[in-house]
Amino acid sequence: MSMELRSRILEELHSLILIDPHTHISALAPASTTLADILGYHYYTELAHSAGMPREQIEDPSITPREKVRRLIENLEPLDNTVQYGWFVEICQALFGFAEDRITSENWEPLYDRAVELMAQDNWAQQVLNKSQLQAVFLTNDFDDPLEGFDTATYIPCLRTDDLVFHLAQAEVRERLERATDSSVTDLASLRAAVTNRFDHFTNRGARACAISLPPDFSPHRISDGRAEHALDALLSAGPDVDPSSSQAVAQSVFWILAEHCDAYQLPFDLMIGVNRNVYEAGVFQGQDLYDSRVSLIQYGDLFNAFPRVTFPISVLASVTNQELTSYSWIFPNVVTHGHWWYSNTPTYIEHDAAARLEAVPRTKQIGYYSDMYKLEFALPKFNMYKRILAKILSERFVIDRGWTEERAVALGRQVLRGNVESVFQMPSYDEPA
Amino acid sequence: MSMELRSRILEELHSLILIDPHTHISALAPASTTLADILGYHYYTELAHSAGMPREQIEDPSITPREKVRRLIENLEPLDNTVQYGWFVEICQALFGFAEDRITSENWEPLYDRAVELMAQDNWAQQVLNKSQLQAVFLTNDFDDPLEGFDTATYIPCLRTDDLVFHLAQAEVRERLERATDSSVTDLASLRAAVTNRFDHFTNRGARACAISLPPDFSPHRISDGRAEHALDALLSAGPDVDPSSSQAVAQSVFWILAEHCDAYQLPFDLMIGVNRNVYEAGVFQGQDLYDSRVSLIQYGDLFNAFPRVTFPISVLASVTNQELTSYSWIFPNVVTHGHWWYSNTPTYIEHDAAARLEAVPRTKQIGYYSDMYKLEFALPKFNMYKRILAKILSERFVIDRGWTEERAVALGRQVLRGNVESVFQMPSYDEPA
Amino acid sequence: MSMELRSRILEELHSLILIDPHTHISALAPASTTLADILGYHYYTELAHSAGMPREQIEDPSITPREKVRRLIENLEPLDNTVQYGWFVEICQALFGFAEDRITSENWEPLYDRAVELMAQDNWAQQVLNKSQLQAVFLTNDFDDPLEGFDTATYIPCLRTDDLVFHLAQAEVRERLERATDSSVTDLASLRAAVTNRFDHFTNRGARACAISLPPDFSPHRISDGRAEHALDALLSAGPDVDPSSSQAVAQSVFWILAEHCDAYQLPFDLMIGVNRNVYEAGVFQGQDLYDSRVSLIQYGDLFNAFPRVTFPISVLASVTNQELTSYSWIFPNVVTHGHWWYSNTPTYIEHDAAARLEAVPRTKQIGYYSDMYKLEFALPKFNMYKRILAKILSERFVIDRGWTEERAVALGRQVLRGNVESVFQMPSYDEPA
Repeated sequence: MSMELRSRILEELHSLILIDPHTHISALAPASTTLADILGYHYYTELAHSAGMPREQIEDPSITPREKVRRLIENLEPLDNTVQYGWFVEICQALFGFAEDRITSENWEPLYDRAVELMAQDNWAQQVLNKSQLQAVFLTNDFDDPLEGFDTATYIPCLRTDDLVFHLAQAEVRERLERATDSSVTDLASLRAAVTNRFDHFTNRGARACAISLPPDFSPHRISDGRAEHALDALLSAGPDVDPSSSQAVAQSVFWILAEHCDAYQLPFDLMIGVNRNVYEAGVFQGQDLYDSRVSLIQYGDLFNAFPRVTFPISVLASVTNQELTSYSWIFPNVVTHGHWWYSNTPTYIEHDAAARLEAVPRTKQIGYYSDMYKLEFALPKFNMYKRILAKILSERFVIDRGWTEERAVALGRQVLRGNVESVFQMPSYDEPA
Repeated sequence: MSMELRSRILEELHSLILIDPHTHISALAPASTTLADILGYHYYTELAHSAGMPREQIEDPSITPREKVRRLIENLEPLDNTVQYGWFVEICQALFGFAEDRITSENWEPLYDRAVELMAQDNWAQQVLNKSQLQAVFLTNDFDDPLEGFDTATYIPCLRTDDLVFHLAQAEVRERLERATDSSVTDLASLRAAVTNRFDHFTNRGARACAISLPPDFSPHRISDGRAEHALDALLSAGPDVDPSSSQAVAQSVFWILAEHCDAYQLPFDLMIGVNRNVYEAGVFQGQDLYDSRVSLIQYGDLFNAFPRVTFPISVLASVTNQELTSYSWIFPNVVTHGHWWYSNTPTYIEHDAAARLEAVPRTKQIGYYSDMYKLEFALPKFNMYKRILAKILSERFVIDRGWTEERAVALGRQVLRGNVESVFQMPSYDEPA
Repeated sequence: MSMELRSRILEELHSLILIDPHTHISALAPASTTLADILGYHYYTELAHSAGMPREQIEDPSITPREKVRRLIENLEPLDNTVQYGWFVEICQALFGFAEDRITSENWEPLYDRAVELMAQDNWAQQVLNKSQLQAVFLTNDFDDPLEGFDTATYIPCLRTDDLVFHLAQAEVRERLERATDSSVTDLASLRAAVTNRFDHFTNRGARACAISLPPDFSPHRISDGRAEHALDALLSAGPDVDPSSSQAVAQSVFWILAEHCDAYQLPFDLMIGVNRNVYEAGVFQGQDLYDSRVSLIQYGDLFNAFPRVTFPISVLASVTNQELTSYSWIFPNVVTHGHWWYSNTPTYIEHDAAARLEAVPRTKQIGYYSDMYKLEFALPKFNMYKRILAKILSERFVIDRGWTEERAVALGRQVLRGNVESVFQMPSYDEPA
């Protein structure tokens, strides 16, 4: 009974047309051109490296995409248990007609060739979007992205602000900001003006969110203009040699200025909380970051209180922080749960975390999932993973445990998968297929 | 098989007559008089506010109960997924004969009227107790409660001590203490005498526990009388302007004096660990508190060691603290697990936490559940929620996974639901129905 | 369907011959001689004590083993719900032909006598190994263990180093080290030489790992030789009165020297992270330790980076640390997940933690389980507990949720139970039964 129920609910979820509210897609090259783009995703390179493959073999600049794929395929066997490997197989099956359940040294070449052939088709990106039931995806754009040359109805700009908050001491970052805004940052006023310039630029081109990832020890507070001015002076003269106290004060100040702009521009501020960068120094590209799970949302209490009109869709890196996220979303009108991020994006943690949210946070305040993908092909298996878990939770915990009708359970699933993306990010509403 | 087994076990659990070991019931007004008392519970006001309803609309002092209910009903739809909403529907169905599964703007008025009519009956409180299979409930009494005008066999006094430990700097608290004890607090000796007076008062009127809620950074330690005397002096002269160090020393001192009295009077000391007050400053009444889950029971090691004869029934606010509670109860003879508190009182967390306790803590040292309710009507849906989860755990993890008989599983359920409330709080034993 | 699937997978797991990669077995007295050896395990004495049995009754030096068992049996009823009690019953059923499901004051004596009789047989230890499907077990040897008088192919030495790192201030520890190495520790050079001596001794006798348990606040870092030398001087002159800063510096220094030796000798370094010793001061023998779950593997970042060629099989005491362990193993090539330790070795936590690892860590980097036992009889029920949970996870989360074949699921189980013990600890490979 339970399995059939779960299947029926899953089928309903599969019929939805979705908007992916957080990705790292490049709008100018959204889809892959070879399997190397797929297997170059850090999940595969870091897991293969963790299982013993030397970084030099993976990141050898002299090899062709085909050779890179050959090498990686030879090193995937030790990780063929992982759900990440499962995404790869599902991509190959659903998008390239692959019929087996493992990709090996024996069977990869025809697959590689078939993928190259399909990916070379003119409308491949659109084909992938269609097969993935995706209407649009949010981007993650550097503050100096020109946001030109693509359809912003399908590829929705989102202002990523890590560089401004944490790396303003780097001359290169300030130079990029100066080029983008056509003015220099010399004091707090010109810094504010530069931020305003970027919010104008982004919102004029349809940006629907401002976003940032934050380390576990960050705790935003308003600091005085005097203190901020003084710290900014120190940072502008010392650059990367700035004292940590001034560096932190500038980070606090820029972060607060961003929140003020989100308020003024009515833009949700996506907070992705908990990552420590470069923990594994010898790791592969994008495979060096980890975390300290000793973080609390109480660090953000001042922020949530200070900006009641700003919506904060929040992602947490560790599942142990999920109950706090659930509770803070249940209490603070401006806090919204946002997907299952990175190290928490595996089935056991998704199941535990999503179940807790679905039963305690108002259904209007939960964004079920985003793919976080770099290439369009990944939305399909990642959303499918989430939908299967969602169908399991809805069938077992809502229909069976709480006596809900299937219709009501499916409606809840539809809302967290689709409806809330529209309402939280103030998207134009969409007519669902009849 | 599994669902029928679960149902059979649940049916046995439903037949039990229970004592609710922690509530906020007012013995002089234990039940509701209108649905406004039900929907005025902070779970509904804070969730409705979180989902967008302005606080001013909720807490408008000029409106009637009927209008308050009308307004809230109009704002419950966004939270009709929550288990808290489920409690409301179950109350309406079980106590007021409501036949639908959602309360809406269309169907609430007859329900409201029917509830008013029933609640106006002379013996409504007793009817609710009977329908809820409740024999008695523990209260949460201010230290200056006269404890008069009610039957202490049904409404069992419990001395709540937050004010004494954390708010003694407020003149109003000290004045209440002076009025209640007919003497002034001028030094440590008179403070001790005042506490003794209150323990005499409460135990003479049948109190079965002393209780307190504690912030995550509290860590009790014995401090010297000299230090305590000095700090108390500072607090008595400065009042609310007392320096934090003296304020903390007084809190430590009063807490330790309370533990000494629990020892002398053989009263269990309920510790409710982990709440931060007033985190969301603009929240509705009782909807402003949250927490920092970075807390450890090692903070209480000195206390548990110092008072081996005091039983400490412990509630933790965050599910991530539950494994520590399980382990500390498994090791310390005087530590007992106590219910599923507040933000952990939702099915996913209850299931994970209760399962861990049931398999690793001696069965004599677990108090399964308390309602924490303010009005009697809430015991029914809350205990039903817990019983359903308990039946699920007992059927899946004990009968199926561990090969237990159903009888043995039911006996374990009975003990954590009823037997241990009697033994831990030294209640007179009760003859169960044949 | 699901239960039959689970049973079939479990049957396959039961057929495996295993190596237990962490125990406290004494190679010279590996098995029990009476039931007092079984019930003397701290799990029973501490739970009986927690449930009310005075320590003096348990640890009375004047009583016979039979009397000790009689007393404990009389006090086990309050804990007969625990999984630990379940292990005892399973031992009695599987090894002594006991036919009931609870051991009581009425039925224990024939069981006691039967056990004595069987345990007295010449080859009892080997019988237990055979019935438990165990080929070999790892030991936990003090650094001055002569490692003589036993077959190191069955009882595999492992160098335990807590004393060297944390207790070098005790004269007795230094004296043991001097006796074992035939030389004195007077400075950093002689300390290094003593460690080298012990690594030679242990590896010459087949040691396969170095191991240590660590408190939650330990965070290893390389310190300069100058600082280490200075601190060691202080410790050697002051002994137990050494200042905490010097004591910590010596601990850091010795720990780092051990890691250097693991590197040089190609020995895995088992880290067991998170225990606080002597929290419950009045507890029974080995029943005094607890923990603070606020620990992070980021504390070990420097270590993992500094020793890329050393494999670190890591056990964490708290389930809330398991996601970090999963993530760090997924990123760091030299970090391996290792079993389910102590307070996390109960079904609910094993299930949650093992499921998370199996789906996100390369399958070559997970050691599923070790028994941690002091007497051979405990491997059987403990491994059976783990295998049942593993079969549940593999059937529900891999075959059902992810569409795996049963064969593939069983192969994953085999690898984490057996194959990885061989590969991680570089054991000679073993021919499985056809």
